[in-house]
Amino acid sequence: MHLSRRDFSKLTAIGIAAELIPANSALGYAQPASKKVGYAIIGLGRIADLHMQGIHASPTSKITALVSGHRDKAEKYAAQYGIPTSSIYSYETMDQLRDNPTVDATYVCLPNSMHAEYTIRSAKAGKHVFCEKPMATSVSDAEAMIAACKAANVKLMMGYRCHYETTNLAAIKLIRDGAIGQVRSIQSAFGFNADPKEWRLSMPLAGGGPLMDVGIYCLNASRYLTGEEPVSFSAYTTSDPRDPRFNHPNSVEEDLVWTTKFPSGIVASCSTSYGANMQGYYRVYGSKGWLQVDEAFSYQGLRLTGEYWRDAKKEADRVVHLDQPNLEKVPHQFINEADHFSHCILTGQVPKSPGEEGLRDMQCIQQIYKSAGIKIA
Amino acid sequence: MHLSRRDFSKLTAIGIAAELIPANSALGYAQPASKKVGYAIIGLGRIADLHMQGIHASPTSKITALVSGHRDKAEKYAAQYGIPTSSIYSYETMDQLRDNPTVDATYVCLPNSMHAEYTIRSAKAGKHVFCEKPMATSVSDAEAMIAACKAANVKLMMGYRCHYETTNLAAIKLIRDGAIGQVRSIQSAFGFNADPKEWRLSMPLAGGGPLMDVGIYCLNASRYLTGEEPVSFSAYTTSDPRDPRFNHPNSVEEDLVWTTKFPSGIVASCSTSYGANMQGYYRVYGSKGWLQVDEAFSYQGLRLTGEYWRDAKKEADRVVHLDQPNLEKVPHQFINEADHFSHCILTGQVPKSPGEEGLRDMQCIQQIYKSAGIKIA
Repeated sequence: MHLSRRDFSKLTAIGIAAELIPANSALGYAQPASKKVGYAIIGLGRIADLHMQGIHASPTSKITALVSGHRDKAEKYAAQYGIPTSSIYSYETMDQLRDNPTVDATYVCLPNSMHAEYTIRSAKAGKHVFCEKPMATSVSDAEAMIAACKAANVKLMMGYRCHYETTNLAAIKLIRDGAIGQVRSIQSAFGFNADPKEWRLSMPLAGGGPLMDVGIYCLNASRYLTGEEPVSFSAYTTSDPRDPRFNHPNSVEEDLVWTTKFPSGIVASCSTSYGANMQGYYRVYGSKGWLQVDEAFSYQGLRLTGEYWRDAKKEADRVVHLDQPNLEKVPHQFINEADHFSHCILTGQVPKSPGEEGLRDMQCIQQIYKSAGIKIA
Repeated sequence: MHLSRRDFSKLTAIGIAAELIPANSALGYAQPASKKVGYAIIGLGRIADLHMQGIHASPTSKITALVSGHRDKAEKYAAQYGIPTSSIYSYETMDQLRDNPTVDATYVCLPNSMHAEYTIRSAKAGKHVFCEKPMATSVSDAEAMIAACKAANVKLMMGYRCHYETTNLAAIKLIRDGAIGQVRSIQSAFGFNADPKEWRLSMPLAGGGPLMDVGIYCLNASRYLTGEEPVSFSAYTTSDPRDPRFNHPNSVEEDLVWTTKFPSGIVASCSTSYGANMQGYYRVYGSKGWLQVDEAFSYQGLRLTGEYWRDAKKEADRVVHLDQPNLEKVPHQFINEADHFSHCILTGQVPKSPGEEGLRDMQCIQQIYKSAGIKIA
């Protein structure tokens, strides 16, 4: 085995972060900001908790208001983050955010089917909007959200946290730099065992099953890894008829496997489930090598491995191992995400993951469900 | 993380080998055999060289004749393995094997399109047949091969070496034992950069492209991992129009990606290529965990990794690492394969990978090519 001078190990997580993360990033060149962007958190579920930690740790961001149906929960967080109780709103009163000058933007962390309404209400209140993925439960809702933010002259950013995560950025950079040659195929999966009591299992609330919730990570990855938009779709779905989570009329699908073809000929095969703990990963094969990211969509503990060939025929020059630090108090992707949006708001830049990025995924999701014979909104 | 008493690490390669490999195996309870099965090797290419090493190392097998179009090459091997030059045949004279009592069986290691003819001629000469995969280039040829061996009352075994390889057997055992629960989806790939001068790139000689040659490993794996037969197929193919290997009228396909659905609902997504070094692997997701085999179809250096959850919802109990010894002089799968067929011949057993196993893959290959719009024989 001949060791090349081209040393992948130089691409340490931090090195790549410095190249790929906006210069104001907490991981990059963090500086105390004179003005911090104030966020109202709408919905105080599990993901909101992580986003609040990210905002709190970001040098350019702070939490200034909360919107929740649970006053007690809101008061607990208000105390934790030093938010005045006068800045706690209910879903009914949230339009009064308009009159709260400490709030520049909202974080919409609600069940999928509510994203459109609360994004549009945020925009109408004159606030920039950061919205969780999936953007909406239909293409038309996604379009309406983009239109509402344009009309109100506010920014809209989608919560694609992998776009702000250093191992994923390292994989993208390796591919763009040609390390594994021309990409040929991608395989990816992500899924988990859904809690029978959660809103995710209800088609009316979730608007779709694991594809919308976690499969979207594989879909989005196939798009950011290739830099292309898929042109054809085929999909299979299955549900265990004995599983009470999936056998009533309002259930979402249990498993979904789909294949998308990209204009250059790249084919991506992806798999998602609410019935199996599918540790997320992707594997990318190119004409000169391959790479795999394990725990690709996790908050931390991501691992990049791969090999490449110097002349497309010989054995591997080197195996890449890009381990992420596994013990971050707040996963860096949440800090970077908040920091990036605040930076965009402060400087007038367009976010790296704007509403249009969410719309494109929604269009793909619509095609995949259509091919699988699943009716969505 | 709670560590279970159920310790996967006990399933060492050797432990599993002892359970799963026939008792006469070189890896199991090797005993000097009083009678050794004599093999005639038909075709002296790269894979024949490995098979000859496997036969030579098997306690129940020996090489007793050679069939080749290259007399000089045959004489070299004859000297190496102590075969009398009177037992060297050409393709024209090979039917005289009938009169050679030192030959019990043939090893057919020729280009795919010649498997049918030489299997049938071997059977007519009264010899048992071990035939390389893919079995043939059409379903009808595969059926004719099975019929010819039945008519001649000789055994037919297909060279599915992974059926005799301990890491693959360990993966199958873990799945059958329920370690990862009910299997939901499988992703697999295998491919390589084909040499422009090889017969593999010619549709008339190869009868098909990377699917027949290496994709068949993923297909066969999806069948042995699930223990089911696929019921539906969809496939995409692409070829680089600028690549001279794939842009003439007789070229095989460059890339092929297919999805198969199994009766229980399991979906397998597989990818193969002659244009990219796709290090072979498979990843299996179950309701309670997952496993991945890297280098799954290699001669050695296979690696099994995985995690499982005790109650289908909690974090991993343990990560499995089952590394194979990497420095076998002769890869054990070739020894086991030869040993198994010899054992079947000596005891009258049916091989674990009979002709019918090859036929089932041929039927699947036919469906996959049909879905991809590729015309084969």
